[in-house]
Parts: sequence; C-alpha cells; structure tokens
Amino acid sequence: MDTEPIYDLAHLAHLELLTPKPDESLKFFTGVLGMTESAREGNSVYLRAYDDYERYSLKLTASKQPGMGHVAFRTRSPQALDRRAAALRGTEYEFGWGESDLTHGPAFYCRDPDGHRIELYYETQWYEAPQEMRPALKNQAQKFPARGANVRRLDHWNGLAADIEANRRFFETYLGFRLTEQIVLDDGTEAAMWMTCTNKSYDFAYTRDHTGAQGRFHHLTYAVNSREEVLLAADICLENGVYIETGPHKHAIQQTFFLYVYEPGGNRVEVANAGARLILAPDWKPIRWTEAERKKGQAWGLKTIESFHTYGTPPVEPGS
Amino acid sequence: MDTEPIYDLAHLAHLELLTPKPDESLKFFTGVLGMTESAREGNSVYLRAYDDYERYSLKLTASKQPGMGHVAFRTRSPQALDRRAAALRGTEYEFGWGESDLTHGPAFYCRDPDGHRIELYYETQWYEAPQEMRPALKNQAQKFPARGANVRRLDHWNGLAADIEANRRFFETYLGFRLTEQIVLDDGTEAAMWMTCTNKSYDFAYTRDHTGAQGRFHHLTYAVNSREEVLLAADICLENGVYIETGPHKHAIQQTFFLYVYEPGGNRVEVANAGARLILAPDWKPIRWTEAERKKGQAWGLKTIESFHTYGTPPVEPGS
Amino acid sequence: MDTEPIYDLAHLAHLELLTPKPDESLKFFTGVLGMTESAREGNSVYLRAYDDYERYSLKLTASKQPGMGHVAFRTRSPQALDRRAAALRGTEYEFGWGESDLTHGPAFYCRDPDGHRIELYYETQWYEAPQEMRPALKNQAQKFPARGANVRRLDHWNGLAADIEANRRFFETYLGFRLTEQIVLDDGTEAAMWMTCTNKSYDFAYTRDHTGAQGRFHHLTYAVNSREEVLLAADICLENGVYIETGPHKHAIQQTFFLYVYEPGGNRVEVANAGARLILAPDWKPIRWTEAERKKGQAWGLKTIESFHTYGTPPVEPGS
Amino acid sequence: MDTEPIYDLAHLAHLELLTPKPDESLKFFTGVLGMTESAREGNSVYLRAYDDYERYSLKLTASKQPGMGHVAFRTRSPQALDRRAAALRGTEYEFGWGESDLTHGPAFYCRDPDGHRIELYYETQWYEAPQEMRPALKNQAQKFPARGANVRRLDHWNGLAADIEANRRFFETYLGFRLTEQIVLDDGTEAAMWMTCTNKSYDFAYTRDHTGAQGRFHHLTYAVNSREEVLLAADICLENGVYIETGPHKHAIQQTFFLYVYEPGGNRVEVANAGARLILAPDWKPIRWTEAERKKGQAWGLKTIESFHTYGTPPVEPGS
Repeated sequence: MDTEPIYDLAHLAHLELLTPKPDESLKFFTGVLGMTESAREGNSVYLRAYDDYERYSLKLTASKQPGMGHVAFRTRSPQALDRRAAALRGTEYEFGWGESDLTHGPAFYCRDPDGHRIELYYETQWYEAPQEMRPALKNQAQKFPARGANVRRLDHWNGLAADIEANRRFFETYLGFRLTEQIVLDDGTEAAMWMTCTNKSYDFAYTRDHTGAQGRFHHLTYAVNSREEVLLAADICLENGVYIETGPHKHAIQQTFFLYVYEPGGNRVEVANAGARLILAPDWKPIRWTEAERKKGQAWGLKTIESFHTYGTPPVEPGS
Repeated sequence: MDTEPIYDLAHLAHLELLTPKPDESLKFFTGVLGMTESAREGNSVYLRAYDDYERYSLKLTASKQPGMGHVAFRTRSPQALDRRAAALRGTEYEFGWGESDLTHGPAFYCRDPDGHRIELYYETQWYEAPQEMRPALKNQAQKFPARGANVRRLDHWNGLAADIEANRRFFETYLGFRLTEQIVLDDGTEAAMWMTCTNKSYDFAYTRDHTGAQGRFHHLTYAVNSREEVLLAADICLENGVYIETGPHKHAIQQTFFLYVYEPGGNRVEVANAGARLILAPDWKPIRWTEAERKKGQAWGLKTIESFHTYGTPPVEPGS
Repeated sequence: MDTEPIYDLAHLAHLELLTPKPDESLKFFTGVLGMTESAREGNSVYLRAYDDYERYSLKLTASKQPGMGHVAFRTRSPQALDRRAAALRGTEYEFGWGESDLTHGPAFYCRDPDGHRIELYYETQWYEAPQEMRPALKNQAQKFPARGANVRRLDHWNGLAADIEANRRFFETYLGFRLTEQIVLDDGTEAAMWMTCTNKSYDFAYTRDHTGAQGRFHHLTYAVNSREEVLLAADICLENGVYIETGPHKHAIQQTFFLYVYEPGGNRVEVANAGARLILAPDWKPIRWTEAERKKGQAWGLKTIESFHTYGTPPVEPGS
Repeated sequence: MDTEPIYDLAHLAHLELLTPKPDESLKFFTGVLGMTESAREGNSVYLRAYDDYERYSLKLTASKQPGMGHVAFRTRSPQALDRRAAALRGTEYEFGWGESDLTHGPAFYCRDPDGHRIELYYETQWYEAPQEMRPALKNQAQKFPARGANVRRLDHWNGLAADIEANRRFFETYLGFRLTEQIVLDDGTEAAMWMTCTNKSYDFAYTRDHTGAQGRFHHLTYAVNSREEVLLAADICLENGVYIETGPHKHAIQQTFFLYVYEPGGNRVEVANAGARLILAPDWKPIRWTEAERKKGQAWGLKTIESFHTYGTPPVEPGS
C-alpha cells in the first residue's frame, strides 16, 4: 500500500426527502416510525430519530414530486472538510461553498456523476432535548419515544444511478469511501455497490437505474436495536395501512434484516437491523456477488420483489 | 481544534488469556460460547468467534495463574504502525519490536502505565474456513456454529488499573484512543474510563483496582447479535454449571446488555449486545458519571454486585 | 384416578384494582403499558389489553387505599357456573349471586379462606373495536397500539395469604384449579403455590403474607409476546419514572421472564413473557421447591429482592 | 347452549413420520432442530424436543415413501379414553383397540374420513433425563440442548384432505375438537380448518388436497420460545443446506411466526412461535377467511408460495 486511506468523512448526517403529501408523510415519520419533529423552516420540517446526536437526520420538504433533495455527510474535522473541498475544486462535480442547511456551519456542495446533490459540512448543532424529552440515561440523545417503530438513528440511504462504476470511483477518490460489497454482472459491469466511511458495513448503496433516468432515490433506512423490533415495525405498518413492499427478511448482501415500506409521499423507507456485524478490518476485501448468486434471492430464499428493481423516486414517466 | 485526531489503530484484535485449567477453559470457550479452535502452538490454543475475520481473537495459554498475557490491536496501515512505534520509541512504555504472535507480521510491544502488555501489528492472516465450516453467505467468515452461545466477534476487554487518569492520557496520547464515557469521583479523581478507536462506543474499559495490584484483568467480551441471544447464553450457562456473576441486565454506562460469567480458569467473561448504538460523532463529548449517579445501579436498577468491584485475575493474595 | 378433574373454569377474566391516585394510575396503564380505556362507571375506569377478547380485563377503582377489590373468573359454560355455585352453596365461602360487573350476566360471588373476593360468571360481552381501533387481522381483538409496552392480554395475578395450604385446598376443591408448582418449607408448611385452570402454567399464585394480614394483593401480570418486549417495557418504565422493583430476569419457578414495577397508586404490576411453555399434561405432577432451592435466587442467580417478600397492597400499618 | 363441550382430549402427543432417508432425517432432527433420540425399536427411532414431558413426540420410521404413519392424541383421563372409544365404536372410523406404541398403555385406533390414522391413549411414560441431560431447573423435562434450533415442544401438525367439512364434523363430533379458524371459498365449501383441544389456537390444521389423493401429510411443527429463535433456525437451515420453502414470516391466519423447510426424507417441517396468543374464550367464534382475504397473502404481504398448495407427502405420481 503506497498511500494511506482517506479518513475525512465521519458519517452520513441527513437526507432531504421531497414529498407531495407533506402532512401525511410527517404523520408517517412521527406516528409510525416514532420520530420527533425538531424544527420547521419554509416548506421543510426537520425530524430526528431518538438517538441521533445532531438536531435532525431528516429534512422533509414539500414538493411536487417525491425524491431526494440532497444528502449530507459530516466530516471528521474542519481540516477534513477543507481537504475534501480542495479535492473537488475545479472538477465537474463541484458546486462550491453554499448556503448552509439549518444548524450547520460552512457547507460545501457537490454532485456525484449521476447528479445526486451532496452536502459536506463539519460544524453542527447537537440536539438538546426539552425537559419532557430528556432521557433517563445521559448517554442517549433523547427519551425513548415508546411510539410506533421507535427508530434509533439514521443508518444509510440507497440511490439509483446509471453508471455504478463511475459513481464508485467518484466516492472512493473524492470522498474516501470504501467499497464493502458489490454486484458484478457476467459482462463485467457493476450493477450495485455498498460503500462505507465508518465501521458500519455500509453508509450508502447505489443500484443501477434501469430506466436510464438520473439522480433518483431508492430508499433511506433507519436502524432499530433488534430484529424483533423490525418485526414489530411490520406489525405497526400493517395496522396503519402503510404499504409493505417486501420483508421482513434477511439480505444475503450485508446480512441486514430489512423491512421496506412506502411512506405516503411515495418514497421507499427501510427499517433495518444489522446485529453485531461491523467492518473492522482496515483492508476489507470487497465481496463480489455474481448474477447467479443474486438469482438465489435473499438470505433465506425470498425472491427479490420486481418493484425493488424498478420503483424509485421521482417516478419515471413512461416514454420520458 | 488545532490538531487532528490520530486514526492509526483499526480495532482490538485479540487477547491472550492465561488459565490454570486449560482443558476446562477450552471446553467452555468452544462448547458454551460456541467458539472454534483455529490453531495450537506450545501451551496455547487459538480460538475464534464465527465472524472474526482474522484467524483468531483469543489465545488461551496454560499458566499457573489466570489473567491476561497481552492484548493486541491491529493498526490501519503499515505506516500507522510505524507512526505508533515512533511515538512510543524512547518512552518508558516501549518494549520495542518483538516476536510476532502467530500469523502476524512485525509486532511492536509496549505497556500502559499500569503494566498491561500491548501488541501492535498490521500484517495478519485472514481466516479461511475449511470446507465443513464454509458459510452459506460469503460475507461471513465462517459458518454459524449453532452450538452454545454462538458468539459473533470479540467486542472489547476490561482491565483494572491503579491510576485511571494516567492510563487515559497514555491511550489518548500514544495510541489515539478517544474517551467516550468515564466515572469521576466527588474528589475529582477518575475511577473508570471507556475508550474507543472505532465507531463502537468502546473497545476497552479500565476500572480502578482497589487492591493496589497492577496490570490485572477484569473481563473480555464477545458480542452476539441480539439481547435475546444474551438471554439464551444465560440459559446455556445455567444448564452447564457455569458461574453467573451478574446479569443479564442493561448497563447504564454505554447501555450494553450484559451477562458476566467466570470461565473455569477463573477469568471473567462477558457476553454482550450493543444494539444499534454507535459513536458516529467525530467530536463526541465524553459522558461523565458521578458517584451519586453510579449509586443508582445499572440501567433498570440492579445493584452492581460487590465482586464486580473486587474480583479480577490474577487474584490478589490477602496481605500481599 | 377415581374421579375426573373439574373443568368448569375457563380463565382469569379481570381484576378490580383499587388506587388512591386514579388519574396517575390510569395514565400508567394507558400510556406506559399501552392499554385502552373501554368504559367508565362511577368511580371506576375499565381497561383492556389489545388482545383481550372481553371488553375489559382491568377495573380501576378510585379508593382510599391501594389493593384488589375482587378477581373474576369466567366459567366454561352456564352449566359450569351453576355447578360451581352449587358446590359453594352453604359453605363459609359463599357470598351468593350478586350484582353483575359491567357487561356480565349472572354473577356468583365467594371468597377464599384468606378473604379475597371472587366473582364467577359466564355471560359476557365481547369487545367490538371502534373503527379507528379495528385490527388489520380479524383474529385479533383490537389494533396493536404501538404505544408504551403494548401488553397483549391479562396473564395472571398473585395474592398474599396467611395459610397457603388452606387456600390451595379451597381452589382445588371448589373451583377445580390444579397445582403446578409450590414452595414447601423445611417444616412441611406450604409457602407459595401456583395454580391453573388452563394450559398456562399458572393463572394465579399465592405467597405467604408474613405480616399476618389477610386478603392482600401482591401483583397482577400482563403478557407480551417476547422477552425482548419485556426488556423494552423496562426501558419505557425507566424513561417514564416508573419505579422498577426488580427484573427483567427469569423466574426459576415457572420460568417466566419478568419485570416488576409499582404503578402510581402503589400496586405492584408485572410485565411477563412465558415463551412456548405450556402445561399440556393432564396429570402434571406439581413441582415442589425447597427452602434450599429458593435460596439460590432466580434462574440466573438474581437474589429475590427483600421488598418482594414484604410489600403488598394495601400496606400494613406498623403495629396493626 | 344445550349440551356442554367435550373435554376428553388433552393434547397432540406424537406423530409417526415416514422417511426414505432415515439416517439423514435423523441427523436433521437431532443436528438441525436440536432434538434428542430417546429410544429405538425396529425401523423406528423415537425423538423428543427438550421440553416434551413424554418420552417422545416424534417416531421416525424408515419407509419407502415419506408421509405420516399415524398421529397420536393423549386423553385427559382413562375415562375420557373410554368415552372416545365408545363414541367411535361401530362407526366406519373405528379400528379398535390395538397394539400400543412404545411406552403407552391401552391404545384405541381410528381414522378420520380422509384416512389419516389416529391413536388415542392415556397411560404414558414421562421422560426421565439421564444424568448428563438433567435440566438445571426441575420444571423442565430436559437440559436446553444449545444445539441447532433448540425446539422446545411439538406444537401441531397439518394434514391434507379431500373433504374439509367432513373431517371437521368428524373431529368435532367424535373427538371434541373446536374450530378456531377456517377458510371458506366463495362457493361455500370449506378449504381449510384449524382445530384445537387446548388453549393453543390450534393443535392441527387440514387443508384441501387439490390432487384428489387421500390421507396425505402437509407438515408438523415444533415450537420455539421467540420469533428471534425462528430467525436463528432459518440461519441454521441456510448454513446446513436444508431447503427453505418459505418464511420466516407471520401467518395472517392464527398469527404464528413460521419457517417451512423440507427434512431430507421429503416431509415438510415447520419451526414456529405463537407469542402470547392463546384461545381462552370457551365460546370462541371461529374466524372465517374468504378467498379475497386469502389473496392478500400472509400477514405482511408475502404471497403464499405455490408449492405450499401442491406439495405434500407422500408425493402424488402424475397421472395416478
């Protein structure tokens, strides 16, 4: 190894989700997922899981179409932010320093080759729970809500992209993400990738968009503490008329225990648990899955549902 | 922040545990915890949890007394190893480059202020499962054993030390560990610390040794995927005559769900689950627990058992 | 076996709990345990767990002192009710046909030797969920609440009594309960009993009241679906300032996984899970626990907390 | 209600399973499910789950074809056995008193309208664990195995039948089973039924055999204590090359959490958990599911796999 890895990104920080049904989406995230509203500004409501340490991990913005507005990563230091900005300066991916999102310090914006908008920042505001939401244990950001699915923290997100390999190289080169698993088709092209900047086995994933559209969103994921709580989340979705797309079941790739639903605005949301699995090896060798292996379905044999391959937000108009 | 954090250590890699009853200890780790023997050499048997990526995470060595032989951390790169060696060179803590443990490349040895022996290395051997232990999913190191407590991976260890603050400064300064939680007594002295070099909330902890002895061992911990499996581990220990010291219960500090038992050689072993909790904030503010807070007991009110404060290995002779 | 067992009682149906803090108690049962109010009458509020098939399983009555007003069992048929009434007729235990509790048909009242008031009835009202509480699956009484501990159904209750043996004979002879487990002291006297009229391993238990008082109440228990949910209930009690007396832990006797708390009115409440354990043997041989065995504590070694032996409701005045 | 219910059957006691691969089937039940061999006789091996109170709950018999040899129910008393024998005497269903199965007293044999062979008996042998299998808690039949899926007890079985209604009437009339749920097609014919003689929501189920064959077997089910253990069982089956047909998922009907696999002999086996759900109402009103409701799939939307409707043992030869 000639050069050392980049350790400049700390973690996935928040997503801006666009919804054409803001009231119903808000009710889903607070009532069904058990999240807490922590700010409002303009057309946006800011939401948090009970153990997110920052003030919010989800910015829910009223919009004509569902989809993702942008995704934000926090850097490990101010210097790390400057280094990433410097690396991107002058490239086709740079948007440059821009208006900071609520509670953030200086923010640098860029896009990946597929066009997903990315915010990088370091300065942030830690959440301070109001009296009635103070946790009993002071190492937790907020009281356990005991409402809905009780999601603990933002875990990862999944985008759709036309060219997986190009996006992989972008995230490796400019942002220092590491590839942990991938799907490589028989023709040698990459069909999906899972990348991390932490010890989590992935902080985001991209899968190929078969529609040819660009910059689309597949899903975001909140973590709960156990597989049992994913099962309870399924019960709760069932009881509340939330559309369950697939699961609960165990992914063969990454072994996470998943439940996929659609929030009322049309965006796919996952509730997941990863168990004790972490990527601790600094020289982790990416796991490569073949077409034949993928045909076996998920870990226990569940066939991947067709809509999982085709549905994303915003929806693609036929013929567009 | 003037200087940036050190990111040179990748993770806790293995412990050498000393046991006066090697056969019985081996039977405990393989039969009750569900670990796998992966090598033997001299008086030592090497053991692994099913998803440890390296060949072993436990070196069990026959010895007159129980206790810990040494603890090993893997660095993130060869350069990182050299940097840590350079930092320690010429200090009172340096032992210098020494004989590598089985499967490791160059190893640098040092000790902390309390005398615990520490190995640092980068080159290692990844575990390759023999045919009958190949996992169904190739992102897992080894087949799920379906035997005993089915521990997944080494999680952390806990040492006893005379001077917690001195040890904290050593681990921060020379090895780049970050403090996540601590106990500070009313007189301002530090009584316990939890430190991490990963996104886990701790990779090791030190608590004050009230006997005045040095370099002693408190416990090592293996992780399972759920709290339910910690409960099952308690059932299994009960059925197999393993001494259960305390638990299962939830720690107030760090919120891990714990079970403490003594392996036949006399060393304390923990089976634990951390849920979805991770330390993602690069600027995590250490949680400080007071004497009054500690008197409340564990999370749900369980009083900390007296032996937890007094028992360590090797045992201290009365009057010594 | 000369005579056949009595199969006249169907199940424990409800308890009337007395509370000096009716508003706070109500808030506990609805907010923390996740129960639903289904009726009000006079000084009483009627409550139900989400899968209780009858309209209520708890009658919460404002009172000067905490304790139990009465306990009700439903019979298997109208004939079974008449048979039990006939058996009790003319005995010292008979109160006779009395005013039916809300939604019940003819009710026969008696008392056990210790003075606990007992209602027997057959006719009842099945719960019909209002539109917004209709369950997604029609084999469930009510929508899963997704609030607090989400208790599923009333499981059992526990009384204190001066003379365990006398009470055992009463419940065996007049009501057809079967003894499944008991504690017998070294002097041959019975100190506790667990009895059932179903396939559950117990529908109620009695333990000796060391104060010499009569007719007191020890606790009532609601069941959840898993041990994980008992752990979540502990988290929820912790967050909401509910006094946790002991647990979660596993009982050696009956193997149930328990959590004991005090509701604001002072009555002890248990949240428990029994797993897959059922008493299916029609000739089950009662398990007899000795003093020595009880000294080992609970299943995994937790010492039984002192208040568990002394605290009951109503409290006993010192010197009374 | 003019007449009272029959309470003569205590519980499902054992099944005789036929297997063309006796060695492999035995290895599956002991190694993967975690059962214990408790006797051998002729071509049969007797097996038990760790908390079955009788000596065995499964008789595994070498045979040319897979399928079920017979099913046995234990009565609640000797008198109850005589009453059932008397009721069946002279009917077309009677086989009469026959050779008792291992460890049983007098056995009466009959068949249902579809031809499944049924044994009724009362006298039995309680399991006495050898020293090394003694449980730590004396209210459990045997030590927790800590091997494979650790199934606790036989739960239920499922048969295929040509005429569901005829079979329902047989089980209600002659054996006193109660219907808890059923599927009724739009043409008014019954397509499936779930029946119980305990507080479990079913002790067996029958579904219509579309092949027109008679007396076939669909599956048998062992219970574990939690949904988490069903998930672990799926992991274990995956690791051991056991064919997973469908699940884990939650049944809409009966709400049990299921995993269906095929044992090496070809018979379908389920590992399931029922949670805290019990049928306590003595006048339970059967839940009737329509075709439209069944088309919604399982509880969380999983479509019922085609083979679930077509595959049974023995297999039906095409054209036979």
